[in-house]
Amino acid sequence: MTVLEQPDISRTSIFETLESEVRSYSRSWPAVFETASGSWLRDENGKDYLDFFAGAGALNYGHNNPVLKTALVDYIMNDGITHSLDMHTVAKRELLESFERTILEPRGLDYKVQFPGPTGTNTVEAALKLARKVTGRESIINFTNAFHGMTLGALSVTGNSMKRAGAGVPLVHATPMPFDGYFDGSTEDFHWFSRVLDDSGSGLNRPAAVIVETVQGEGGVNVARPEWLRALADLCTERGILLIVDDVQMGCGRTGPFFSFEAAGITPDIVTLSKSIGGYGLPLALTLFRRELDVWGPGEHNGTFRGNNPAFVTARAAFDHYWSDDRLERDTLRKGERIRQTFMNLATMFDGVSTRGRGLVQGLVFDDPSDAQKVCAFAFEEGLLAETAGPSDEVVKLLPPLTITDDELEYGLNIIAEATAKVCA
Amino acid sequence: MTVLEQPDISRTSIFETLESEVRSYSRSWPAVFETASGSWLRDENGKDYLDFFAGAGALNYGHNNPVLKTALVDYIMNDGITHSLDMHTVAKRELLESFERTILEPRGLDYKVQFPGPTGTNTVEAALKLARKVTGRESIINFTNAFHGMTLGALSVTGNSMKRAGAGVPLVHATPMPFDGYFDGSTEDFHWFSRVLDDSGSGLNRPAAVIVETVQGEGGVNVARPEWLRALADLCTERGILLIVDDVQMGCGRTGPFFSFEAAGITPDIVTLSKSIGGYGLPLALTLFRRELDVWGPGEHNGTFRGNNPAFVTARAAFDHYWSDDRLERDTLRKGERIRQTFMNLATMFDGVSTRGRGLVQGLVFDDPSDAQKVCAFAFEEGLLAETAGPSDEVVKLLPPLTITDDELEYGLNIIAEATAKVCA
Amino acid sequence: MTVLEQPDISRTSIFETLESEVRSYSRSWPAVFETASGSWLRDENGKDYLDFFAGAGALNYGHNNPVLKTALVDYIMNDGITHSLDMHTVAKRELLESFERTILEPRGLDYKVQFPGPTGTNTVEAALKLARKVTGRESIINFTNAFHGMTLGALSVTGNSMKRAGAGVPLVHATPMPFDGYFDGSTEDFHWFSRVLDDSGSGLNRPAAVIVETVQGEGGVNVARPEWLRALADLCTERGILLIVDDVQMGCGRTGPFFSFEAAGITPDIVTLSKSIGGYGLPLALTLFRRELDVWGPGEHNGTFRGNNPAFVTARAAFDHYWSDDRLERDTLRKGERIRQTFMNLATMFDGVSTRGRGLVQGLVFDDPSDAQKVCAFAFEEGLLAETAGPSDEVVKLLPPLTITDDELEYGLNIIAEATAKVCA
Amino acid sequence: MTVLEQPDISRTSIFETLESEVRSYSRSWPAVFETASGSWLRDENGKDYLDFFAGAGALNYGHNNPVLKTALVDYIMNDGITHSLDMHTVAKRELLESFERTILEPRGLDYKVQFPGPTGTNTVEAALKLARKVTGRESIINFTNAFHGMTLGALSVTGNSMKRAGAGVPLVHATPMPFDGYFDGSTEDFHWFSRVLDDSGSGLNRPAAVIVETVQGEGGVNVARPEWLRALADLCTERGILLIVDDVQMGCGRTGPFFSFEAAGITPDIVTLSKSIGGYGLPLALTLFRRELDVWGPGEHNGTFRGNNPAFVTARAAFDHYWSDDRLERDTLRKGERIRQTFMNLATMFDGVSTRGRGLVQGLVFDDPSDAQKVCAFAFEEGLLAETAGPSDEVVKLLPPLTITDDELEYGLNIIAEATAKVCA
Repeated sequence: MTVLEQPDISRTSIFETLESEVRSYSRSWPAVFETASGSWLRDENGKDYLDFFAGAGALNYGHNNPVLKTALVDYIMNDGITHSLDMHTVAKRELLESFERTILEPRGLDYKVQFPGPTGTNTVEAALKLARKVTGRESIINFTNAFHGMTLGALSVTGNSMKRAGAGVPLVHATPMPFDGYFDGSTEDFHWFSRVLDDSGSGLNRPAAVIVETVQGEGGVNVARPEWLRALADLCTERGILLIVDDVQMGCGRTGPFFSFEAAGITPDIVTLSKSIGGYGLPLALTLFRRELDVWGPGEHNGTFRGNNPAFVTARAAFDHYWSDDRLERDTLRKGERIRQTFMNLATMFDGVSTRGRGLVQGLVFDDPSDAQKVCAFAFEEGLLAETAGPSDEVVKLLPPLTITDDELEYGLNIIAEATAKVCA
Repeated sequence: MTVLEQPDISRTSIFETLESEVRSYSRSWPAVFETASGSWLRDENGKDYLDFFAGAGALNYGHNNPVLKTALVDYIMNDGITHSLDMHTVAKRELLESFERTILEPRGLDYKVQFPGPTGTNTVEAALKLARKVTGRESIINFTNAFHGMTLGALSVTGNSMKRAGAGVPLVHATPMPFDGYFDGSTEDFHWFSRVLDDSGSGLNRPAAVIVETVQGEGGVNVARPEWLRALADLCTERGILLIVDDVQMGCGRTGPFFSFEAAGITPDIVTLSKSIGGYGLPLALTLFRRELDVWGPGEHNGTFRGNNPAFVTARAAFDHYWSDDRLERDTLRKGERIRQTFMNLATMFDGVSTRGRGLVQGLVFDDPSDAQKVCAFAFEEGLLAETAGPSDEVVKLLPPLTITDDELEYGLNIIAEATAKVCA
Repeated sequence: MTVLEQPDISRTSIFETLESEVRSYSRSWPAVFETASGSWLRDENGKDYLDFFAGAGALNYGHNNPVLKTALVDYIMNDGITHSLDMHTVAKRELLESFERTILEPRGLDYKVQFPGPTGTNTVEAALKLARKVTGRESIINFTNAFHGMTLGALSVTGNSMKRAGAGVPLVHATPMPFDGYFDGSTEDFHWFSRVLDDSGSGLNRPAAVIVETVQGEGGVNVARPEWLRALADLCTERGILLIVDDVQMGCGRTGPFFSFEAAGITPDIVTLSKSIGGYGLPLALTLFRRELDVWGPGEHNGTFRGNNPAFVTARAAFDHYWSDDRLERDTLRKGERIRQTFMNLATMFDGVSTRGRGLVQGLVFDDPSDAQKVCAFAFEEGLLAETAGPSDEVVKLLPPLTITDDELEYGLNIIAEATAKVCA
Repeated sequence: MTVLEQPDISRTSIFETLESEVRSYSRSWPAVFETASGSWLRDENGKDYLDFFAGAGALNYGHNNPVLKTALVDYIMNDGITHSLDMHTVAKRELLESFERTILEPRGLDYKVQFPGPTGTNTVEAALKLARKVTGRESIINFTNAFHGMTLGALSVTGNSMKRAGAGVPLVHATPMPFDGYFDGSTEDFHWFSRVLDDSGSGLNRPAAVIVETVQGEGGVNVARPEWLRALADLCTERGILLIVDDVQMGCGRTGPFFSFEAAGITPDIVTLSKSIGGYGLPLALTLFRRELDVWGPGEHNGTFRGNNPAFVTARAAFDHYWSDDRLERDTLRKGERIRQTFMNLATMFDGVSTRGRGLVQGLVFDDPSDAQKVCAFAFEEGLLAETAGPSDEVVKLLPPLTITDDELEYGLNIIAEATAKVCA
């Protein structure tokens, strides 16, 4: 980083004087961003940054995607409804029709769709409430290193101890179980979980539901094997426990197929979506569930911004453009494989480095967590945004836009490789 | 409603087949809306509706306000950052600068600003977490008929029993106290509350905070008197309890001044804002708190959409345009007085009808709740959107855009008056 | 107290070195007691103490009552069963027969009898569990300054903040309401309680039960009026809420009649008994409930010592001897009146002194709590055991054995009067 | 069972009409017991029963032990204090002196002694409260198939789902871990437990304490190996978690040494005792803890019957008589070995039968739970009391008095062997 590129302190000062200390990413990336396009952000000094973080998975179609932008601006210019609570609008109808045609029907999914408020934590809260209402039970099973959100219900099923402590009240009604691979394969899958479920003396309150991410993003790019997910789904079905797949980060094509659970061939009872579902980075969330679980009374769960129509418009444009065929899915898998090759090479070249991932969520894991942080810091200097994940921030997690070009991908991977070499050599 | 105006069943069908039964407003207002401008919505058949609900207070500046629209479209066309988590952006800086200049400084408020996720329930969750973190205590005092949101933390301080039941787990850590006027003036203010606070044998867990709306919107347009709010603030100060004013619905000028608590001359420890803070109906929320309460660690509360830059842009445009002088505030008070006159007349003319409100939140209260619902149904037929509130839906609650014209207001009030006459005669 | 009567430090030392700091009464009364008879205790130095505390109400028939002693020793000498879990024994049958004949039948009470473990807190836990099981609801209403026990369930319905803090976890599922007289008559009875019960927006979780003491002993000899208890019972009946009277301290004749609620003419759904029910100071507890509430499954609540047969034997002897006629009840009321006269005189003579009570639980209330403690300290020096109660220990609470003689009562009252004069003059 | 021995229905009827349906053992053993001596009970028809249950471990010294009886009757006849709350008494001093001399000092245990109320569940509640107070944390780790009592705190750390359901509120703040041998040795010890403790992303709230039985009696005679207990103690020490050994059933010599944890060579932070601590089947409980954990404030945990002096007298007599040398311990181990030989033979002779135990708690385990129940039913007919344990009642659990004679043991084992042969042949 040269002197000219130094962030101008005077220009960032209002963030320091007025914004809460809770701010976080702005500390790792001390720039003031102004515009963005595709896989790139530009700061106010004109410096460009290649984005391998993509809004933590909220920008699967890139920044200000022109296809979506056109639809959005047309809609606004024509005075399309912006805010409508949960009233019917033409934009909502077109969203539902497109979602049914491009996503649900081709996959044979007979889900009802709820608009639960436009954030990931809100769809998780709706899912937990529905599971408890349907079963009449309180307890939820979550997994080690899960992340599901920051409101009190979602936080209770989240693993991170720092975030849990922020609740200020004891978080109860959830019991963590080991995620796939938690014991590095040394213990048989579900040994503990199925045993305590079936043992009337185990002290485990009978659960309403299991909530799981197929790939734990915040938790460190922990990938559940398809056979583990199938076994989990079977275990739930056999015991009358609802299976919730939280696809907030891994859905919308992040792992290749639209839903991350498709590869395992399972059909969850409830699915949560947010982040990239709005397409353009606009707030939107959906809760999907099997038709017979739709026991909600009118207004039993609501929220002011559940009818964010601009996001309906961009979401629909994204479905129509990207999900009418399998091009995006195949591209994602191919690009993911490209990252994987680079990471495998790095793991071979350097001690204490390994890799894991699926599709376009790939992690480079460092035995020494400080190495991961150094790699990301070096990348930032070189104009690449990448973040760490995992309980000790030991994983460099790549979440580039699915629409990234091969050249951009290559460019970014070179920086990561260079940074790794520098840090681990 | 004529035959021609009947909603076309075939056209609404995907809402019924695909959207969850949780949908609510769409049942009262069975139309499919397409465009909107100012105080008006238009459905797909071209029928216009005057909007006396304004997105439950999220559209204080009207639908698709042209001042904000211009700023928004310019920003999008120029590829301004759309989604940025909590990174620094130029749009965020300009928002903070404008908020400080037009809102905080003129009112002498030395608050820090947190971006907690873009919905009302999220800012309430952040406020409760912060209050518990600061004080090390768990318990929160809320008020009868309060409404603060639908995620588990916010729901625990909400009064409505149907919504509470949706939680599926016992809601604990909150104790309701009587809101101002709960006993129609027959009992001295705070008799019960201050007594149990000071009695070491009362069984009340010592609270971290009190959360209050100055006017309870969902609860039935219950208005707290300034002297009651001052006494509440004093009581909190004396006992080291934090005072949270939930200004999600009543802030942003709804009652006249920007913050609803200004009239009482109090300075809450924590303030929650959402709904109209984004200006254009776009999701945004802020949590404000006294500088010394900013004990958050980086990332201790977060959320994907807390950096919704399009809403920063429209919010800033709204601050600059509407809050650089006191025109809007004076207009709001004047228009509120206009509604009040009409409602006082109706209360005089008809038995079982009364009124209450402040600024542009005004309620027409019916002894027989079914009358309130009939009035709203009749209004809808006549092309006016108005909703009921209160524990038995006994209040017709008017929340028109603050930017409504005098003629529009007159037009809508005539419909309400006509409906009341028809129902109560 | 002369030098010779000083407690011998060396002789008390094992209490200090080995017993936990949690010990309490031994601090107020620093003697080592050795024998006891009737209303008197004797310490190891031969000093006698008149007992106006009676084991906190566990010794209504005095210490080592000879009628009960004979029955007890005979039983032990004949190798009667001592410990039997919940097996049938002859002693249990005779207890049940006597209880039915002398207590239940004459009062027309069709209760089932549960042996819940031999302490007050255990019968309260059983009562709460049963109420929740019957109703399927979690929430319990308790009253300001209530005391119901120290295990987690009982503690949650207890008012004292020091004792509550000992729980170490948030105490939830209970909401306190004002006990009779809490506002010194300035507020209509049940104004708050009935209002929040009937208001669907009040935020009060619908309760399973109300638990109440007719006279709050630990809480400071707060006496509920019969009309208040009747109104409470009516309120519960009308709303399908179970009424639990905790008669652990006030039952067994303490207020005159066997059950303290008889004077009000109400029939609680559930009644808890302990303390004097075993007659001789031996651990025993009973939970009584309306026959149709007996939904317990076998063993669903249990405990090792619920079959404490020696206590069955002394309990039965007490029923037969003291409750076959109304002599004890009349004597208790007469003696209570005697205390009351003395206390009324003291209240007349001294500022800042008042009195309240019923039967043989009578309180002398001091505006300055330190006066109450001085009175008890002086009394101890003079050979009288009396304790303070109330949230600030501001009440000298008299609980003499019901079998105290008139002379003994006179003797003790003189000491109290003398002490009061000395302290308040 | 002959006709003459049939329980006389008319004589048992008051149990059926008046006692709650919660009664349990009386259903398995439909007799009315009258007297008892040593290892024998006699019913009202004069039939004798050999007692292999010993009050669920509360009668380790047999029924109405003459050594203790003499001390007890002398005490009562001399008007020794019966009930004294937590006042100092000569009987309490002598108990403490004897306990220190015979139990604590020889074992080098520097514990403080709390009298927490006279039942097992009460000492467990006191232990949990103390652990939470000392650490400032809420969460407790318990084990699969644990049993710790029936009040709300103790129930939350108990495994049995039927008993847990009786709580009527969600039981929270406890997380079960696998007890030793839960996976039949297939999984490395503490794999799961230590992993989740050390993983900041595991979602496990950091625990205040671990509560464990060294042999789970109610849970089915599950025996923790000494090396497992040592590893557990190490794990707690390393992580600043308090170790509570619940020795309510397994203490007082049941497994041989006075404390069941002695064999493992560990020193728990907190120990709970009840059942046989009173010696004669009289209610008593103790909570022991390391001196530096004695942070209780005066009266912070209390209870009416914590000063049950008759039990102090018999407890002390038991310490002096049975624990001044190692005779009882050696006898217990020898007799336990005798049972073990018989059970090993039965396990060899019959398919689906196995055995486990330590000292004089020995289990005969049947693959088919109904076999265990048949064995106990047959034994009852033959005049032997034995009970089942385990989550499916699949274990015949022998808990004879430690003072049983060799002939009596032989006699009873023959009945068990005969019953097993009859059932399994």
